Amino acid sequence: MIRFLTAGESHGPMLTAIIEGLPAGLPLTPEDINGELARRQQGYGSGGRMSIEQDTVRITSGVMNGVTTGAPIALLVENRDFKNWREKDIDAMTIPRPGHADLTGAIKYGYRDMRIALERASARETTMRVAVGAICKKLLAEFGIVVGGYVTQVGDVKATIDPEMGYEERFRLAEENDVRCPAHESVEAMHEAIRQIKIDKDTLGGIFEVIALNVPAGLGSHVHWDRRLDAKIVAAMVSIHAMKGAEIGEAFDNAGKPGSQVHDAIGLSSDEDHLIRRTNRAGGTEGGISTGEPIVARVAMKPIATILKSLESVNLATGAAENTVFERSDFCALPRAIPIGEAMMAIVIADALLEKLGGDSIGEMKPRFASLRQARLSDLPMDNVEWRFGYE
Amino acid sequence: MIRFLTAGESHGPMLTAIIEGLPAGLPLTPEDINGELARRQQGYGSGGRMSIEQDTVRITSGVMNGVTTGAPIALLVENRDFKNWREKDIDAMTIPRPGHADLTGAIKYGYRDMRIALERASARETTMRVAVGAICKKLLAEFGIVVGGYVTQVGDVKATIDPEMGYEERFRLAEENDVRCPAHESVEAMHEAIRQIKIDKDTLGGIFEVIALNVPAGLGSHVHWDRRLDAKIVAAMVSIHAMKGAEIGEAFDNAGKPGSQVHDAIGLSSDEDHLIRRTNRAGGTEGGISTGEPIVARVAMKPIATILKSLESVNLATGAAENTVFERSDFCALPRAIPIGEAMMAIVIADALLEKLGGDSIGEMKPRFASLRQARLSDLPMDNVEWRFGYE
Amino acid sequence: MIRFLTAGESHGPMLTAIIEGLPAGLPLTPEDINGELARRQQGYGSGGRMSIEQDTVRITSGVMNGVTTGAPIALLVENRDFKNWREKDIDAMTIPRPGHADLTGAIKYGYRDMRIALERASARETTMRVAVGAICKKLLAEFGIVVGGYVTQVGDVKATIDPEMGYEERFRLAEENDVRCPAHESVEAMHEAIRQIKIDKDTLGGIFEVIALNVPAGLGSHVHWDRRLDAKIVAAMVSIHAMKGAEIGEAFDNAGKPGSQVHDAIGLSSDEDHLIRRTNRAGGTEGGISTGEPIVARVAMKPIATILKSLESVNLATGAAENTVFERSDFCALPRAIPIGEAMMAIVIADALLEKLGGDSIGEMKPRFASLRQARLSDLPMDNVEWRFGYE
Amino acid sequence: MIRFLTAGESHGPMLTAIIEGLPAGLPLTPEDINGELARRQQGYGSGGRMSIEQDTVRITSGVMNGVTTGAPIALLVENRDFKNWREKDIDAMTIPRPGHADLTGAIKYGYRDMRIALERASARETTMRVAVGAICKKLLAEFGIVVGGYVTQVGDVKATIDPEMGYEERFRLAEENDVRCPAHESVEAMHEAIRQIKIDKDTLGGIFEVIALNVPAGLGSHVHWDRRLDAKIVAAMVSIHAMKGAEIGEAFDNAGKPGSQVHDAIGLSSDEDHLIRRTNRAGGTEGGISTGEPIVARVAMKPIATILKSLESVNLATGAAENTVFERSDFCALPRAIPIGEAMMAIVIADALLEKLGGDSIGEMKPRFASLRQARLSDLPMDNVEWRFGYE
Repeated sequence: MIRFLTAGESHGPMLTAIIEGLPAGLPLTPEDINGELARRQQGYGSGGRMSIEQDTVRITSGVMNGVTTGAPIALLVENRDFKNWREKDIDAMTIPRPGHADLTGAIKYGYRDMRIALERASARETTMRVAVGAICKKLLAEFGIVVGGYVTQVGDVKATIDPEMGYEERFRLAEENDVRCPAHESVEAMHEAIRQIKIDKDTLGGIFEVIALNVPAGLGSHVHWDRRLDAKIVAAMVSIHAMKGAEIGEAFDNAGKPGSQVHDAIGLSSDEDHLIRRTNRAGGTEGGISTGEPIVARVAMKPIATILKSLESVNLATGAAENTVFERSDFCALPRAIPIGEAMMAIVIADALLEKLGGDSIGEMKPRFASLRQARLSDLPMDNVEWRFGYE
Repeated sequence: MIRFLTAGESHGPMLTAIIEGLPAGLPLTPEDINGELARRQQGYGSGGRMSIEQDTVRITSGVMNGVTTGAPIALLVENRDFKNWREKDIDAMTIPRPGHADLTGAIKYGYRDMRIALERASARETTMRVAVGAICKKLLAEFGIVVGGYVTQVGDVKATIDPEMGYEERFRLAEENDVRCPAHESVEAMHEAIRQIKIDKDTLGGIFEVIALNVPAGLGSHVHWDRRLDAKIVAAMVSIHAMKGAEIGEAFDNAGKPGSQVHDAIGLSSDEDHLIRRTNRAGGTEGGISTGEPIVARVAMKPIATILKSLESVNLATGAAENTVFERSDFCALPRAIPIGEAMMAIVIADALLEKLGGDSIGEMKPRFASLRQARLSDLPMDNVEWRFGYE
Repeated sequence: MIRFLTAGESHGPMLTAIIEGLPAGLPLTPEDINGELARRQQGYGSGGRMSIEQDTVRITSGVMNGVTTGAPIALLVENRDFKNWREKDIDAMTIPRPGHADLTGAIKYGYRDMRIALERASARETTMRVAVGAICKKLLAEFGIVVGGYVTQVGDVKATIDPEMGYEERFRLAEENDVRCPAHESVEAMHEAIRQIKIDKDTLGGIFEVIALNVPAGLGSHVHWDRRLDAKIVAAMVSIHAMKGAEIGEAFDNAGKPGSQVHDAIGLSSDEDHLIRRTNRAGGTEGGISTGEPIVARVAMKPIATILKSLESVNLATGAAENTVFERSDFCALPRAIPIGEAMMAIVIADALLEKLGGDSIGEMKPRFASLRQARLSDLPMDNVEWRFGYE
Repeated sequence: MIRFLTAGESHGPMLTAIIEGLPAGLPLTPEDINGELARRQQGYGSGGRMSIEQDTVRITSGVMNGVTTGAPIALLVENRDFKNWREKDIDAMTIPRPGHADLTGAIKYGYRDMRIALERASARETTMRVAVGAICKKLLAEFGIVVGGYVTQVGDVKATIDPEMGYEERFRLAEENDVRCPAHESVEAMHEAIRQIKIDKDTLGGIFEVIALNVPAGLGSHVHWDRRLDAKIVAAMVSIHAMKGAEIGEAFDNAGKPGSQVHDAIGLSSDEDHLIRRTNRAGGTEGGISTGEPIVARVAMKPIATILKSLESVNLATGAAENTVFERSDFCALPRAIPIGEAMMAIVIADALLEKLGGDSIGEMKPRFASLRQARLSDLPMDNVEWRFGYE
């Protein structure tokens, strides 16, 4: 079981994470993590902060000679911007911004300066999720599992993705542009939407997909409500700042269709050796358990709450109506959300895989993985069933 | 912190739940639970099972003289259908149904008869969630918190709900018809869609909303990813059988709008005493913390996987392609999903409330609740801020 | 990971437990559990209750055709005494008994009748721990792991156990007498002490040992404080009613000796194939990890708090000093504590084993167990070490 | 609920901890922590390491302007010794030391150099527990709760502590000498024992007590096995390196006495206002719930496993018997264990207090604490009991 805690504020000295429960024997270097941190910092529509920070991680425990030891791993990322803020004379923040944790944080914790809420509620926190996720990706890669993602909609501009295009191709094409959209013909319209929203002093959200490939069948469980893999995935997605909805496959669309058009028929491979699916409308889970098909999460991101065009609010220092004051932010953070969504998917899948395999080292896990029951007919022999229905 | 475990199979002798962590001093009788169990059994589009069962609960611990003691509460619901199945000679199930846990359960647990997966994967399990949820509703009622829900879409038939209609009115109107839709003018079209799907030997899903009213601001937290209230709610919803997506407010729609049309301006009440919101597009949470506005979850239910019209599959006893065999089921289970969704919402909110209030008895919790910081200006005095931004 | 909840009061209608997280494929019948329940009911020094109850369990879910399915298992045990109490007119209990949860429970939960505390605080609750433990014992037996125990001291009467006597022999001999002491020559003195304490209208505690045999090396972990196996075992022991102390091996005695007389030298087997220990003063754990030697827990039980000779107290209904009123109880419950201690040990070891092996069925776990790294030299090849000390 | 993770190796660059779940509004500076870190580094019988390190903590998040914010707190402590080890050419460690995690760690994780086990298994890890505990002590101090401790036995030298001496006096006197023993007349014998053990190239353990004063009645619970406060405390103690046993009060001694001499009579204060105890043989808990009396844990520490006099072992690189090689260590670490034991006690009590009080800020918790039900007669009115015994 993976446990991790993150700490750190947006303009504090550094961000920290500790991850506990990973096996020994996984090769791991800062570069494995830094690549993902860099992806998180790149995307069309970002604000000024990203030109200040160039996140690099320091691994201070749990790894020796470039290999994990099984001990907790501590990760540190310094905030370059800290030195700028440390000296600054910063006014208290007393006008809550709609859509942010400013007001809810102050009510919950009793802050008299809402900047205290802002500092931890900032998406800067996701840096450490990406770092933890990068380690989980490395672990998953040992077993051939790949996690990727891409943008499908910016504001109201929907990408027209060829449904025949494979997922790895989509991942590759998405990385080739700064909105992370695999449909290159849609990129210019997305750019235009973001340019216009800047002119409007407004912000944009959108929709993205995160997919895990080559996940073995049998992760998660139907036997108890809180063990369902699909529920864990949507929770992980909605736990990301500004994400307010998630679905497995095209769930909201499928809700409008008859069952015969939603479920994925089970067929035989041409050599009659194993079971296959010709569709994956279920998005990779049935009964809260992975099917072996790609696990597809679709996530709705709201437009960033920090808007250059000020919004109606109240100054809590005076009790009078007063519009919000702009804090530096992105105009559209969607492209940068992709590696964050991937990180959360990787964490959930890695945890479920560790539960299935057990074990304390990669060496112990590898043969167990190789022996996992598959959708092969020889793995599922139901002729002459002896163990059958019956109670008491 | 509420912990609960449920147990029981669809045709086994009984269903069981144990709930641990509830305070002492809450009045509770079986009738409080039976009413919710009855709601779960009523709805247009149900199959034959519901005419057999009339669920009633037995409380066997944790309650004395009609009041909770703080000890774990055990709940039992007998399966009337058990006696029918006990005697029956039942064939092994060897043809997995697409969309169900039949195949994934067999791969995960090594079942040689997939009926073993079916028995626990059945939505019969939600009976105990509704029972647990009924207790949580009773607890919430002590603090004025109300949870309700209704159907907004059956198949592709969308209800036209007056946006001005209040939530309690919606709850009331929804209970007046057997599709649990507050827009009575949409009911006939929904009936028609379900009648037609029966003729087509197919199934229908849809979309519903579950709302928690009068939740105090400050439940959940932005400080750590796994403490966000919105993420817990979507996980609870998607943990329900056949639910594959969930959003807080109209998240997927909001993803297409500019920020200025998505965030909820903060205003002053007419007596300038407290802060108000004129809209609730956020669906009741900001930064993963309740705002004090209604908490609105929208959930996508897929059409039931058990379809009278058989689907392509493979007989695992022979290795040959063979279509699925029908198991008794509903045609459209959506109306019956409402009390289940409400139960899960009630469980999540009750747990978050207990975290905020602490305490071991209703008597201990009541004055704490009365003292909670509100969105009143006098609760949030930010003039002459002394505790302000600053590190190290 | 095993989760379990228990519920039920001493004189309520029944006791309940739900266990979640066990693998599929484990043969299990009520008889496997009833044998342990019967052991819990037998022992010299018991009070009147045990002649009323003859506990038998009903398994109502999670098992089909005598084999676990991986679904949660619900267990029910009826209280025969319930019918006697249901009709009775029972006075409120207002004089707290020293040593019991009467007063602390009333302070915590606000009870106005302390019988409510008594009902759940009663050791009757351990019935369900024994039931859960019996299932864990059955699971452990699949892997050759045996858990047993015996009394070593009743009041101030210490058994003189031959240090050369093997543990399985001790378990066997202990079951042959009603104080569960393997040193038969000490039994009469123990009987005499208990007879005298009855005459004195007083109670006796004592010390017992619980041992797990054939536990593989490598369960638990040193890497994080809350993963240490020894800490989990002492917590499990002290969680039992009346147990106030526990040690791994003879820890309190060892605290007085020099290190050279406490640590267990590592030697070679005669065929030079594997590592051996000639002593087990560590009690089976080093660094919070099982060594492969017997795991030995020693537990101190206080004398039962319910004493026929009344103790000084205060009547909370009058505010005046008043002595305690006797509630039916045991004089010496120590012999009956053995199966309870064994149950808790079995639960902790089973959980640690599942963490090490992972997997969802006995069939999946068996080959993994067979491949566990042992104390064989061929498993621990440290010549030509390539992966060695080094940071960053 | 407090969650914390620690990370870091004995000779790695730094130690790290993250604590999540603390309230906002607690004044906290590095000095609050450094004082406890310094105590952990002082004690007669230490080895060479302590002259190298002078631990000071850096707080990098969760605190602003010297006050906690409710966000996770990250703590860093640099290892000064790191620079010495970084450059060194260090041989692989292939001869496991009896009593250490060397061999068990290698079996569990598959290490080929056992120094990897040693690095994390080192008691250097307790530095971060002391740091976390110092924060919990600061929190407890807000509510008048004090945690302290002292040595009662070094090797076989038992301190003769005046039973009438108050606990705060004991804490004060213990800090006045370098074996942390409140009975100053026993100190010279303890010194002598440690001096002799150095000459013998051996090590010594002993026994210490940790006490929490002014803990309100009602923390912990009897209602479920894993909520008992006493069980949590012994687990916390035995989770410390080299601690193999723990008891609440003098449990092993009490096990030999009749109940009438073990339980603590309940009396009336002289003004007949509240209940009192004239003894505290229970060690501060009844039914797993705090009584309001001092909570007393007694802990058995084994002699340190790293012994200058080498022990019999096997070289895993050659497969031949070979004695252990000395690693730098303490001769008697007992005096330095006191602040570690206090830290673990403080963590458990703070967690239980937060569960009882709930709340997210000190300001929210204070009035709740003031309203806690006490052992006052006016808080426990049991006359005219209406809510009384009865089932179904």
